[in-house]
Amino acid sequence: MNVVKIGLLGLGNVGCGTWLTLTTNSSSIVARAGVKLEVAGIAVRDLNKRRLASPPAELLTTDALSLIDDPSIPIIVETIGCPHQDTRIARDFMLRALAAGKHVVTANKEVLAKHGRELRAAVGASGGLYYEGAVAGGIPVVKVFRESLAGNTVTSIMGIINGTTNYILTRMSHEGSPFGDVLRAAQELGYAEQDPSSDVDGHDAAYKLALLCSMAIGAEVNVEDIFREGISGITPEDLHYAAELGYTVKLLAIARRDGGSVELRVHPTMIPSSHPLASVGGAFNAVFIQGDAVGDLMLYGMGAGMMPTGSAVVADCIDAAINVARGVSPVPDRREQRCTLKPMDDVVSCYYVRVQVVDEPGVMAALASEFGRAGVSIESLIQKGRGQDPVSVVFVTHAARERSVQEALRGVRALDVVHSVASVIRVVAG
Amino acid sequence: MNVVKIGLLGLGNVGCGTWLTLTTNSSSIVARAGVKLEVAGIAVRDLNKRRLASPPAELLTTDALSLIDDPSIPIIVETIGCPHQDTRIARDFMLRALAAGKHVVTANKEVLAKHGRELRAAVGASGGLYYEGAVAGGIPVVKVFRESLAGNTVTSIMGIINGTTNYILTRMSHEGSPFGDVLRAAQELGYAEQDPSSDVDGHDAAYKLALLCSMAIGAEVNVEDIFREGISGITPEDLHYAAELGYTVKLLAIARRDGGSVELRVHPTMIPSSHPLASVGGAFNAVFIQGDAVGDLMLYGMGAGMMPTGSAVVADCIDAAINVARGVSPVPDRREQRCTLKPMDDVVSCYYVRVQVVDEPGVMAALASEFGRAGVSIESLIQKGRGQDPVSVVFVTHAARERSVQEALRGVRALDVVHSVASVIRVVAG
Repeated sequence: MNVVKIGLLGLGNVGCGTWLTLTTNSSSIVARAGVKLEVAGIAVRDLNKRRLASPPAELLTTDALSLIDDPSIPIIVETIGCPHQDTRIARDFMLRALAAGKHVVTANKEVLAKHGRELRAAVGASGGLYYEGAVAGGIPVVKVFRESLAGNTVTSIMGIINGTTNYILTRMSHEGSPFGDVLRAAQELGYAEQDPSSDVDGHDAAYKLALLCSMAIGAEVNVEDIFREGISGITPEDLHYAAELGYTVKLLAIARRDGGSVELRVHPTMIPSSHPLASVGGAFNAVFIQGDAVGDLMLYGMGAGMMPTGSAVVADCIDAAINVARGVSPVPDRREQRCTLKPMDDVVSCYYVRVQVVDEPGVMAALASEFGRAGVSIESLIQKGRGQDPVSVVFVTHAARERSVQEALRGVRALDVVHSVASVIRVVAG
Repeated sequence: MNVVKIGLLGLGNVGCGTWLTLTTNSSSIVARAGVKLEVAGIAVRDLNKRRLASPPAELLTTDALSLIDDPSIPIIVETIGCPHQDTRIARDFMLRALAAGKHVVTANKEVLAKHGRELRAAVGASGGLYYEGAVAGGIPVVKVFRESLAGNTVTSIMGIINGTTNYILTRMSHEGSPFGDVLRAAQELGYAEQDPSSDVDGHDAAYKLALLCSMAIGAEVNVEDIFREGISGITPEDLHYAAELGYTVKLLAIARRDGGSVELRVHPTMIPSSHPLASVGGAFNAVFIQGDAVGDLMLYGMGAGMMPTGSAVVADCIDAAINVARGVSPVPDRREQRCTLKPMDDVVSCYYVRVQVVDEPGVMAALASEFGRAGVSIESLIQKGRGQDPVSVVFVTHAARERSVQEALRGVRALDVVHSVASVIRVVAG
């Protein structure tokens, strides 16, 4: 039996999940790969730290380069993450391994989003870059886009690709509790970071969307150019009205192809409660895809966590080991396509709008006329909680351009009878 | 640019979908495969038949062997199906192509279920057998099981893998209509065959389950040994009670590993309405998988149809073309594992039971005591429609062995106050 050696960089969550998966299922891995995968060494910063997995002490080293530079190790698995938000350490290690013609496996979405082009360009004739674990953890989105959908033109993607925000929105919906309370509970349970901004403001989802877009549509975009709106403004009141209207609110990452341009956006979205994405609860992730041949396709699973991400990293290790044993490289990624990013102003969507108004005759007409003036037609308009002051008025618009809706909202805000525009949530029509 | 030639056998639904997908997305296919895929010939029985796709007439031939035996064609795509339920034509063509060292792509579940072992054994050192389209159409279950989950021990699979029955059950649930009416409507719309037995009695799902089991668990089983129960006994009354109890009824194909044995069964099943499978409506398919590393994973999409199946066949063609260009074969399927089929009597499940009884005091106690005698404990017991004769009594049991439940039901049937046991539906607990 041939043996293919792996050098593992890092033994945090993903590193431990990788180790545990490789060792627990070693016999079925051999059966699939046709070769034995052997971890030849594990680079860590602290040899004595307590960890979730306990590989033999003799495998540990503090010298990552001793693994990267070892010519007997053809596969380097990078799981060191981004200590102190610094993506350079992982990037430098990967570039060095790729320059040596190695196969590099990573689950590091931030490094890929920031340095992906450079890393892909550094792949040698004999090596490869594998990153199934970088988007949506255990869900095999990379392989499905690259291989299973290779005969398709992917026209749209809608993803629930941040588990923390989905957990918070699911609990808010079920419990009717406000965002702050649920966030604090999630932090206590370890489902949300102490600094939750990366998740709740949509940064994490935007990184993953940039990767999905490059895989599925072949378009490279800067993460900073992706329209992004977080979930901190979502209120139990909005979730209640959404349910009443037959919708569920999810933080969606959306990519949609429109001729030569692509729209990319991350924001809270109302989707019909009968849509398959609506029942994706808790910390689960899902990616809903439309392709011209395959039609609707959805992949659902654990988007993070030690073992699911380990499952994806090990799948990559097996692919890499098969390639090493055969002396071939993975087929390079699809060529980059020229795609322009559609300005957010031009994006067309339906909108849910909640306005706080004085409860007096003529208010509804005044509101409706502001929308009409901007060319936005209203599908439904409901006044809620009569007799209170202020009172909520809830609209759902027909499909309209973002620019027109913002214009209507400026008009609405200027009305004397309007206290505030309390919420604006984009809607995916049924 | 290298060209890899394809010989297409058959130009029915799947053949047309394959042709259309290959030609519509040829440029992205080249980008992915690194080679050009060219259909060198299409074997049909009738040159002049009107079809859903119109390849150039000079590609058509009535001589399949002229393609299979052409040494310049390394890939044979079999889409002829099973004319007159005969699997031998497709089997013989595939065996001949494999014997010549070719790569063979098929979406023919029946041929694979009946002759899979023989076909796999015939794969030459230079060839391969690809069958992504054979289970669940456009949903990439084969690749996910073989590659993405290769690091996992798959512990259970629950699949909605027959679109016709899911369409019928979905309409019955929404409309409250009886099975026969909805079946007739489905037949008129072309969603069900004139002889619907293959679908509604669960044969089609059992074929697919046998394939799933061999891929995911590595166990080969005879389709005839799979426990099978169709949906023709499901009534609107049961669907109504299911909804009231928080369940949705689906025809599930279930594979569950239990040590060295595996349980395999196809039957109507009540699943909690919050389960991701519950919202799989209409003709859609979904496969819900549990793996020891990946956790819960679900794949959802179009399980049949010209274009979705064409999408899967083309993905296989691309994999095959890459292998041809590199002169390698696909990694062989996982080795066959020794697995015994668990007898249905030993399968453990919860059960929904509806009994028609005389409405008189003491009936509930008599019923409950029959279950107690058999060692089956009852989770809930509801009497419905008081004052009618007969009246329905609905039970849900805790997890119990099939053998014990059948024993309890024999006791129940023998009671004087019992008209009939109207329904028994297995339940997946939440």
